Amino acid sequence: MNKILLSFKFVIIMTCVFIFTKTDAQVIEDFKTSTSAQIGKKFPQVNSERRVRVQISAPEAKLVQLDIGAVKYDLKKDENGVWTGESAPQDEGFHYYQLNIDGASVPDPASLYYYGASRWGSGVEVPAHDQDFYELKNVPHGQVREHIYYSEESKSMRRCFIYTPPGYDKNIETRYPVLYLQHGGGENETGWSSQGRANLIMDNLIAEGKAKPFIIVMDNGTWSQRGPRPSAGGTWPPKGWADGFMNVLTKDIIPMIDKEYRTLPNQQNRAMAGLSMGGMQTRIITLANPDLFSQVGMFSGGSINVEDVNNSPGYKENVKLLFISYGSHELDNPRTNMNGSPAENVKKLKEIGMNSHFYISPNTAHEWQSWRRSLYQFAQLVFK
Amino acid sequence: MNKILLSFKFVIIMTCVFIFTKTDAQVIEDFKTSTSAQIGKKFPQVNSERRVRVQISAPEAKLVQLDIGAVKYDLKKDENGVWTGESAPQDEGFHYYQLNIDGASVPDPASLYYYGASRWGSGVEVPAHDQDFYELKNVPHGQVREHIYYSEESKSMRRCFIYTPPGYDKNIETRYPVLYLQHGGGENETGWSSQGRANLIMDNLIAEGKAKPFIIVMDNGTWSQRGPRPSAGGTWPPKGWADGFMNVLTKDIIPMIDKEYRTLPNQQNRAMAGLSMGGMQTRIITLANPDLFSQVGMFSGGSINVEDVNNSPGYKENVKLLFISYGSHELDNPRTNMNGSPAENVKKLKEIGMNSHFYISPNTAHEWQSWRRSLYQFAQLVFK
Repeated sequence: MNKILLSFKFVIIMTCVFIFTKTDAQVIEDFKTSTSAQIGKKFPQVNSERRVRVQISAPEAKLVQLDIGAVKYDLKKDENGVWTGESAPQDEGFHYYQLNIDGASVPDPASLYYYGASRWGSGVEVPAHDQDFYELKNVPHGQVREHIYYSEESKSMRRCFIYTPPGYDKNIETRYPVLYLQHGGGENETGWSSQGRANLIMDNLIAEGKAKPFIIVMDNGTWSQRGPRPSAGGTWPPKGWADGFMNVLTKDIIPMIDKEYRTLPNQQNRAMAGLSMGGMQTRIITLANPDLFSQVGMFSGGSINVEDVNNSPGYKENVKLLFISYGSHELDNPRTNMNGSPAENVKKLKEIGMNSHFYISPNTAHEWQSWRRSLYQFAQLVFK
Repeated sequence: MNKILLSFKFVIIMTCVFIFTKTDAQVIEDFKTSTSAQIGKKFPQVNSERRVRVQISAPEAKLVQLDIGAVKYDLKKDENGVWTGESAPQDEGFHYYQLNIDGASVPDPASLYYYGASRWGSGVEVPAHDQDFYELKNVPHGQVREHIYYSEESKSMRRCFIYTPPGYDKNIETRYPVLYLQHGGGENETGWSSQGRANLIMDNLIAEGKAKPFIIVMDNGTWSQRGPRPSAGGTWPPKGWADGFMNVLTKDIIPMIDKEYRTLPNQQNRAMAGLSMGGMQTRIITLANPDLFSQVGMFSGGSINVEDVNNSPGYKENVKLLFISYGSHELDNPRTNMNGSPAENVKKLKEIGMNSHFYISPNTAHEWQSWRRSLYQFAQLVFK
């Protein structure tokens, strides 16, 4: 009996040891501080599996969680009241996250902050096999300029960020094409030059001679929607769109940019692109204004089909580049709204003679790594 | 007996009512959302007494505090797990703060974030009687440009922000004076154009014709100090200072700015100013380089006396403006290091013929409102 009990105990103990060892072995202990940690902070960290590990001192807390990718991971408390824990492996690139401390959702005090999900909050940079294209390098750098202006259309002070390419201040006889580049829903005018790294992507491409230098205008496309949302029985685009961002863009922003910067102020040298909501805006605004834009990019924001083109007089003739992209995981997701099959749409647009491209970002979802890569591809095609 | 008891009860009840009423009456219920709240958030709020009120949902927390001005205020929890509470009255202007949730110090998820106290974290804007001078108005606006560069001195990539005045891109024959403007300890190159509002202060002054348009360069003056700190037996300036920020400023930054911007590239049109640590740097760097700078501003960062001037050959003749300032509460604080009496120093410098000014910011301490006002004053004197 004692022997049996002992054996039983042994099995239980060994099972526990096995489980403990297995759990431990699942996490590879090669974590390094993320580039999105604040200066002087050791966390957040990421390991070679792309797990994100956070740490916070909260001696009196009962429950602390890492909330990333719509999953909450419990942290463990040590004898000093310091909580530590990590997520499952994440996709390469940038992810928003937050901490939950006894029911309070707060930014991680160790991370840098970014605007997304309709709030300023934490983000973590997960190393990527192709991160070289958006890294800070010792190459000639353009500037990102905060540009404050009054909008007659919205009767308010607004702000945009302008990327001017390297040499803009020196080559004072040179005029440049312009890309109007929009963020997604719940983001703002800071997104593309912060987590999007649009300026570094362009600086690196220009240094390698892979992209033509151009100006990028990043404004705020968030707009109060009148009428019900599609989910509440409304139609897309929602009623009121026409007097929203499109009017500010076409009546205030474009004339201002053409007046205050050394642009090539014509349709041939004007592009619009955007991610997610910004891609949907690009679709609507360029279809309504083929006299204004000749180059179009939609990143994870639907697609344009032959019927759209046929309903927009001049679009087929005047639009010289049509670029559609998605993260590969989005294509597998039945909930992704793509306006039909983007691949099929692009194929048919090519058949009617349009310069169309479809790009799939490998192993990424509806997230910034898809959009960084999309800009990297688009920038090499545009204005050529 | 019953009557006595009743009277006694009555007194107790009335005392409670009185205390309750008094406590309640102490907080005037005219709170308004601060301009430093994130878009769509109702808190932080400030009332007419300049109390700061915060609110956060933390249903499982035992203790939530507002930590502002080195004082922690307990919040109160309601039946929904939402905690609310307010501070004692604060000085006018901008203040860093944080929340403490069961021992964890975290940013308030409702506020905008600023770099100070060596971290990105919450800040709150308390309305001021003189806030008009730093408000966003429909006047011509300059730009704030993010400028990335490689420093030979530090062998690293660095970043500064450059304010170019309204019309800089238009008046392409015009060259401008330059102010090198430094942040304080635990702050960085973002401080002056974010919580400092340097660009808005300048835009408003220029619109009113009260300041000459000039370029402002805001770089990162934080430097690893070699040798012991003064508090650990070292001397101020710490050993190694000379090959720290001063070298990067004089060997990398100034030549770069004079090359890449339309500056008036001479001593007569070059100023340096800074707050706190940046003021101390201004003192050391301008005393060591009177051939480089003709205008000097020190905001809450010590003062320059006749002996300093006598020990710096050329300083007396070449420096055309010397501006010293403090918040009034700093002057009352025996711990403030002012290098003697700034008022007395300025008086004596005037006596030896130097154009010296001493400004006291009313009812403020070692905080941004003192420095906004100091820049507002300094900008009206400089380069004239």
